[in-house]
Amino acid sequence: MPKPSAAKILYGGDYNPEQWPEDVRKEDLALFDKAGIDTLTIGVFSWGLFQRNETEYDFGELDSIVESLQSAGKRICLATGTGGHPAWLARKYPDVTRVDFEGRKHVYGQRHNACPNSPSFRRFATAYVEQLATRYRDVDEIVAWHIGNEYGGACYCENCARAFRVWLQRRYGTLQRLNEAWNTTFWSHTMYDWDDVVPPNALSEHWRGPDHTAFNGITLDYHRFTTDSMIDSFLAEKEVVRRHTPSIPVTTNFMGQYRPLDYHRWAPHLDFASWDNYPRDAKSPDMMGLSHDLMRGLKRGDPFWLMEQTPSTTASRDVNPVKRPGILALWSWQAVAHGADAVLYFQMRQSKGACEKYHGAVIDHSGRDDTRVFRETADLGSKLEHLAGEIVGSQARNRTALLFDWDSWWALEISDGPNRLLKYQDVMRRYYAALQNAGIGVDVVDVSTDLSGYDVVVAPVLHLLKGDLAGRIERFVDGGGHFVTTFLSGRVDVDDNAFLSDVPGPLVNVLGLRVTETDALGPEEPNSITVTDAAAGPFEASLIFDVVETGTAEVLATYANDFYAGTPAVTRNRLGQGTAWYCATHLDSTGVTWLLGQVLAEAGLSSPYGGVPGIEVTERHRDDATYLFLLNHGITETVITLDRTGRSLLTDTDIAAGDIVAIPAAGVVVLKSAPTAS
Amino acid sequence: MPKPSAAKILYGGDYNPEQWPEDVRKEDLALFDKAGIDTLTIGVFSWGLFQRNETEYDFGELDSIVESLQSAGKRICLATGTGGHPAWLARKYPDVTRVDFEGRKHVYGQRHNACPNSPSFRRFATAYVEQLATRYRDVDEIVAWHIGNEYGGACYCENCARAFRVWLQRRYGTLQRLNEAWNTTFWSHTMYDWDDVVPPNALSEHWRGPDHTAFNGITLDYHRFTTDSMIDSFLAEKEVVRRHTPSIPVTTNFMGQYRPLDYHRWAPHLDFASWDNYPRDAKSPDMMGLSHDLMRGLKRGDPFWLMEQTPSTTASRDVNPVKRPGILALWSWQAVAHGADAVLYFQMRQSKGACEKYHGAVIDHSGRDDTRVFRETADLGSKLEHLAGEIVGSQARNRTALLFDWDSWWALEISDGPNRLLKYQDVMRRYYAALQNAGIGVDVVDVSTDLSGYDVVVAPVLHLLKGDLAGRIERFVDGGGHFVTTFLSGRVDVDDNAFLSDVPGPLVNVLGLRVTETDALGPEEPNSITVTDAAAGPFEASLIFDVVETGTAEVLATYANDFYAGTPAVTRNRLGQGTAWYCATHLDSTGVTWLLGQVLAEAGLSSPYGGVPGIEVTERHRDDATYLFLLNHGITETVITLDRTGRSLLTDTDIAAGDIVAIPAAGVVVLKSAPTAS
Amino acid sequence: MPKPSAAKILYGGDYNPEQWPEDVRKEDLALFDKAGIDTLTIGVFSWGLFQRNETEYDFGELDSIVESLQSAGKRICLATGTGGHPAWLARKYPDVTRVDFEGRKHVYGQRHNACPNSPSFRRFATAYVEQLATRYRDVDEIVAWHIGNEYGGACYCENCARAFRVWLQRRYGTLQRLNEAWNTTFWSHTMYDWDDVVPPNALSEHWRGPDHTAFNGITLDYHRFTTDSMIDSFLAEKEVVRRHTPSIPVTTNFMGQYRPLDYHRWAPHLDFASWDNYPRDAKSPDMMGLSHDLMRGLKRGDPFWLMEQTPSTTASRDVNPVKRPGILALWSWQAVAHGADAVLYFQMRQSKGACEKYHGAVIDHSGRDDTRVFRETADLGSKLEHLAGEIVGSQARNRTALLFDWDSWWALEISDGPNRLLKYQDVMRRYYAALQNAGIGVDVVDVSTDLSGYDVVVAPVLHLLKGDLAGRIERFVDGGGHFVTTFLSGRVDVDDNAFLSDVPGPLVNVLGLRVTETDALGPEEPNSITVTDAAAGPFEASLIFDVVETGTAEVLATYANDFYAGTPAVTRNRLGQGTAWYCATHLDSTGVTWLLGQVLAEAGLSSPYGGVPGIEVTERHRDDATYLFLLNHGITETVITLDRTGRSLLTDTDIAAGDIVAIPAAGVVVLKSAPTAS
Repeated sequence: MPKPSAAKILYGGDYNPEQWPEDVRKEDLALFDKAGIDTLTIGVFSWGLFQRNETEYDFGELDSIVESLQSAGKRICLATGTGGHPAWLARKYPDVTRVDFEGRKHVYGQRHNACPNSPSFRRFATAYVEQLATRYRDVDEIVAWHIGNEYGGACYCENCARAFRVWLQRRYGTLQRLNEAWNTTFWSHTMYDWDDVVPPNALSEHWRGPDHTAFNGITLDYHRFTTDSMIDSFLAEKEVVRRHTPSIPVTTNFMGQYRPLDYHRWAPHLDFASWDNYPRDAKSPDMMGLSHDLMRGLKRGDPFWLMEQTPSTTASRDVNPVKRPGILALWSWQAVAHGADAVLYFQMRQSKGACEKYHGAVIDHSGRDDTRVFRETADLGSKLEHLAGEIVGSQARNRTALLFDWDSWWALEISDGPNRLLKYQDVMRRYYAALQNAGIGVDVVDVSTDLSGYDVVVAPVLHLLKGDLAGRIERFVDGGGHFVTTFLSGRVDVDDNAFLSDVPGPLVNVLGLRVTETDALGPEEPNSITVTDAAAGPFEASLIFDVVETGTAEVLATYANDFYAGTPAVTRNRLGQGTAWYCATHLDSTGVTWLLGQVLAEAGLSSPYGGVPGIEVTERHRDDATYLFLLNHGITETVITLDRTGRSLLTDTDIAAGDIVAIPAAGVVVLKSAPTAS
Repeated sequence: MPKPSAAKILYGGDYNPEQWPEDVRKEDLALFDKAGIDTLTIGVFSWGLFQRNETEYDFGELDSIVESLQSAGKRICLATGTGGHPAWLARKYPDVTRVDFEGRKHVYGQRHNACPNSPSFRRFATAYVEQLATRYRDVDEIVAWHIGNEYGGACYCENCARAFRVWLQRRYGTLQRLNEAWNTTFWSHTMYDWDDVVPPNALSEHWRGPDHTAFNGITLDYHRFTTDSMIDSFLAEKEVVRRHTPSIPVTTNFMGQYRPLDYHRWAPHLDFASWDNYPRDAKSPDMMGLSHDLMRGLKRGDPFWLMEQTPSTTASRDVNPVKRPGILALWSWQAVAHGADAVLYFQMRQSKGACEKYHGAVIDHSGRDDTRVFRETADLGSKLEHLAGEIVGSQARNRTALLFDWDSWWALEISDGPNRLLKYQDVMRRYYAALQNAGIGVDVVDVSTDLSGYDVVVAPVLHLLKGDLAGRIERFVDGGGHFVTTFLSGRVDVDDNAFLSDVPGPLVNVLGLRVTETDALGPEEPNSITVTDAAAGPFEASLIFDVVETGTAEVLATYANDFYAGTPAVTRNRLGQGTAWYCATHLDSTGVTWLLGQVLAEAGLSSPYGGVPGIEVTERHRDDATYLFLLNHGITETVITLDRTGRSLLTDTDIAAGDIVAIPAAGVVVLKSAPTAS
Repeated sequence: MPKPSAAKILYGGDYNPEQWPEDVRKEDLALFDKAGIDTLTIGVFSWGLFQRNETEYDFGELDSIVESLQSAGKRICLATGTGGHPAWLARKYPDVTRVDFEGRKHVYGQRHNACPNSPSFRRFATAYVEQLATRYRDVDEIVAWHIGNEYGGACYCENCARAFRVWLQRRYGTLQRLNEAWNTTFWSHTMYDWDDVVPPNALSEHWRGPDHTAFNGITLDYHRFTTDSMIDSFLAEKEVVRRHTPSIPVTTNFMGQYRPLDYHRWAPHLDFASWDNYPRDAKSPDMMGLSHDLMRGLKRGDPFWLMEQTPSTTASRDVNPVKRPGILALWSWQAVAHGADAVLYFQMRQSKGACEKYHGAVIDHSGRDDTRVFRETADLGSKLEHLAGEIVGSQARNRTALLFDWDSWWALEISDGPNRLLKYQDVMRRYYAALQNAGIGVDVVDVSTDLSGYDVVVAPVLHLLKGDLAGRIERFVDGGGHFVTTFLSGRVDVDDNAFLSDVPGPLVNVLGLRVTETDALGPEEPNSITVTDAAAGPFEASLIFDVVETGTAEVLATYANDFYAGTPAVTRNRLGQGTAWYCATHLDSTGVTWLLGQVLAEAGLSSPYGGVPGIEVTERHRDDATYLFLLNHGITETVITLDRTGRSLLTDTDIAAGDIVAIPAAGVVVLKSAPTAS
């Protein structure tokens, strides 16, 4: 599996010179040099331009683009360009377009919407990629292949229905097994023929929307099938480029915490991970951190690429603020701090027309180099150039893991009952933020990850429990690990059928308790949690309230109100050398901070930089150095006492342990110090 | 018409042993005995399991279920099981599935969604029922047939369109009459051919949704037609079971105040009424009471069955709280207090998978008998066993009737103007609650009911006035009755055409007034009502404000504000021996309580238990006894002085008039006393 | 182009006697006389009644209606009646019904929904109109033709798709030009065949709804095409009636600020403008004023007709209040004050059934002449009769123009970014209201209007800048005019492609500044604007914040907060003899009032009646008189000192300059004085 290699952190982004005349392209190259831009992603949406019908290709323009970038000494990330298909293709081969969740057949328009099981799309896309790969296989400047673009959505057409049945036959073997998995004796749903299966959408099992399904099993499987269908579509193109260019690494740009696709299923097929960071607002360093760590976890800690971010503003939100001064740099550094070896923008030059004409760009409609955005871009470019080979290739070495599981996410959110207002991401974010604020680095990993390398494993709402995970958790704890889980964990098996046993099923023993009821209330009816030794709290709890009877577990906190007042809300079970903690209710942020504080103390984990408001801290390691990143997401200057000796890379000054550094709002400190033992 | 007969109040509910292995079923029977469960509804959703194609039936499993219940001495409510059709049926006979309001043809999925006019569904459903009835006709333990399940929704397919035209021909005879009824000279809608008629949905007469129609007449008729179509579907199955088992009573489970179907049209075809009580929240004893009384009214006071309720939680709401301790019993007793002779749950054992896996059950996934829910279920079971033949068969004898009319409900809520925020149920509930709080038993009856048996008739928003009702009201008042109605009553005839006369049309004379304008304002612009003699009030009024000119009526209250300040808001007209009251605006609860207090005083009706917060009181009567029910829906203990001598059935103690009893929160007192003259 | 001529302000409205029996019609005529009603619009929705199939017409009933109106001496506005097509037509010729934005083919129902490109509709509609025109061509009482009714909506069927491609070929000539206009190199959208174009809707370029499009160019063009398609449909009928009755003026009733159709494209084809005034609430004298002035502007100041208004209540809103006492007259006078020569109601007699049965009418279901509504209608009728030939034919002579541009409205609101919460109408309304409150008459005109006749031109959010407008603006300013524009102006060209230059594109020079960034924030994050000389303010600003660098412009106000604090928010540039003002942010009403106050002062414009709360003032002029209208929209009496000598027409009293007049709430003063020089 080839990996990207580079002498520095790559800097640049999406570039669409085919939309511009020659003179503009010349200006671009000059501006790239001014801004320290060395890497351009090209061809993302140019299929329709370079292929005018089934047989005619015209790559003259792309040749010229590639040549000019070569001449300018730029690196190229070459896209297969299949994220947007040509209009003629959709018109002549209607199987290319999707049928949506509402059952409506679409025609040509938009992008990212080819049916992943369309034979015509598969045929023409791979033929186009074959042309591309053949033509540019010897361009040394190509540092990566970028397959498709932001895969997403789902299709419910007849081709998908057929493919789904084949997928089910492969998964279940027999109809009897499928009937069991989906519990079809319920509501008269026994399937006697594979053709009885129809895709689950608004015309079949769903009402109100994609999360309201009569049969969770089929809907859950359709999510898995959709992921696999898109992987197949990706692999068809990957096969072509791998054949021609076996040493060029291949990626596709993911979208962080994107619910429709299980990126953990996809990850093995990537040579390296990359993703597009468009946070919903400017107040989410925790959500961005969580996404960065999730993306890094896809390839078990290997550096990833930040494939897209806007230098200033998005256009797709109802309200699109510009990034405040310094944020472009701060968020870029955050990506690097979490493991990125490339910082790329969408896009280089602002579109003239269509729906992204107001999306920010390094170069705006005026073409000027004296805009604030261009200046900030160039400032960062100059810093990255100055860093040269520093940081590149270094990795995290964290003692704490957060389990992230698409199956649990799906199963939880397509469930009728107990509480649809409870969202997977809201819980994950609260636990992640508590660790981030404590200065504790986190690996966000899938549930098949070997836990033995960690001291603490946090698994909120681990709703669906599959494979040998329960046993591995028990061994982890027994061997001295510290495991934390919450309400609504351990409820269903891989088929989304309830465990027919005490709740939480296979976790009962490790947790030393059972849940006898689960109450659900709206946010307007919170409860309060009293810590048993009164050393902290009380904390607010909401939405979900497990009623717990403890076995071997100790009670650390209890409910203050309602008919279960005085019963356990937070417990700890000592098992072997370790501990297993249960949080029976959706605690507020201060409560989660308290709980994880207890766990980290138990595990002996702490950070000298923990608990400083607004300050995020991470480390990256190489054999020859350790890099400490301190980022100020707050709005005021913050003073920090450093814990180590080394060199401040962005100021080019030596520092010593005990030195005090003032980090301004949006400021960043990168400290290089001697390597620590891995 | 056979009626259910039983030696005690039946106790049990929906049971799906076909979803479980043999050992679980054995445990079930033991648990049923522990919980005093004697009646099981089986086969509700097992059609697909017992019929694998057009010709093959396999009832082996059902045989074994029936036998095991027989052996265990249980009563059986046998469902025809057609509420969910088999997957193969939908696939091979696409006319079985519906076209929805949006015009979308559905495929297989969910339940309760066969087209009621599908020839294939009719053919295969009756054939299946024929098999069932033939096979189990001699099972003595069958106490009732349960046809289909929770009929609902609507279909807009071509078969329905054709059936609608036939229905219209039967109703109107000629196109001329249809054109008049629908007022088709409006908007160029004259129909010259029956085929000009298309079902009213989002593709034809509707915009925004089902309540926004260009032609109220066609939409109103489609509601009636849909009701009749479902009745036909029901009758086709009833014909089969009646033929085989003429002495077993037949029902289908209704859903209380369910707007889509006019249960009054359906009631004559039931042998007894039954319904499923899933209140939207835990704060609605008035809504539940209203629904119980509405359901009892379907068969003119005969006992009904509570066919379903959850023992703990639903799963279908966004937020699904568990029933608080004691509520399972309190709400069960409320059903009995209002006339139920059976208390049944959905369901016995919690589903393993699919959308109801988190719906509450008597036996949960753990299979335990020491859960709170099981204990409360068993407690109630034991009390019902202890009661033996008490209560069963007794009936209400109320002096007050509330007119409930689906035609008015529909006509009001599909109307453009005056105020869509005004909801039929909100008004009905307010008037019902005032009576309930006053301790006055209410018969909720359809408008064809003989009024002469009542002292007080309350008819809020009697929007559509049909048949000879106006004349009967006038005779009722003239003969000494007390009649109350409100704003937006007497506005349209049976075709939903306005009465071309003073408002409120045929009620002008009995009320002694006319409405000259109807103002509508949002809830943020309330008015205030001043009682003329200042003995009460002021009260808030909102949403609708009739401007009234009185003729013979006296003014009891006037508007305080707006350009109609000082004009009548509440009036009373003395006519013959009785009175007719008009409330021109949507009064708040205290206002309605005041108004009905005046009316009850006029009628000489009162209760010694009226006006106690949280306490609901009802009576049931038999030739040999009177049963008084006192239920505490409040959250505190309440002390009551009893008005009669008798026996407290749940404590097995004698009581005397003047005794004081403390009823805890969620507590229930059942007093048996000597029969009162009927 | 024939123009309406009349001896008085016409009074009456829509009349549907075909819905009523003979005796009712007789009553109607008597009531019309009582109410001073002289003009009736007939036949608006009677096509289906008078044509029962492809070949049979029966106009007997219409003959009798026309004759009775002739006998009664009434004027007739004859509708072609094609706003609602017959049921048989939709059934037999399915191309008549539309495909909606969701891609759903509709069947028969509702109204105003024939496909504008349906060959069958075109054929049968013109044939029907031919019959009408032939039959009634010699009826002298016909004062106008009323084509169709309230044209609106859009269709996406195959016929429309084909017509759209023809329209595009005509507009662009070549595919290359189309590809440039739509910027199709973006997202692989290059079109190689005209058939590649499909209508932009939910199945192609749109998501979320009609305002979310991937390609703004195609969506913008579809708006233009839809307008043109409806114009074609209108013209087909106009051609028929013009041929038969060349001297009868033709109109169709518009709907004021109706976004889907560009009335400026349509206006040249009208003989006179008319519109239906149904304000969304009773608190919008500014929005009604703006709409009246917009409608008057369609025919460059010619008198228009108020074709519809309700005398009391609408029925189509969720909540439908009655018009308070006096409002019927006040709003009728407002129409006249803004240029109406006809005051017409919908409708004469309240419908019996269907969705408008609760819509207000002059005669309600009771048929009485003693209702408040009838009395107020008759009072106004009597006043209009008394006026005789006064006012009729007079015109406004305003020095201030407000540019209103459908292209800008569309382009702004279909744009992704910067802020979808910013609505075109909200901005226009704020600027209009400030002028209205200052007592300054405004001509609301399209952007092709000759500006040289004005002193002040206000052009808020002039987003799309087309043709030679920028040059004309510059010449206007240079010649001494005062021009005001705002944020988000001058951003895109006629194809909705961004100007590739400094912002605001072609307006940079006249404004003497450039915009370097545009920030967008939600309403919960306002900024504050500080006036440089501190003579006024501060003012709140919200939603959009241009960051401005001034060139020759002076800074009049700056931002108080955020990273652009202290930078320019309001500027003035002196150019030649005039000034050009830029408002960089969405100021609150007081801010806009301040800004326009500065501009008017600069231009030397003022009104003696400006700034009086609730009072609206307008003037109309004829060669022989000037008419001053003072309307009190407030809720209290207001005292005004008159500035001129003349006669108060509604009180028939002479007045002198300096006289004081008390205008009660909802009161109106009409002063006739000597003509002023035009």
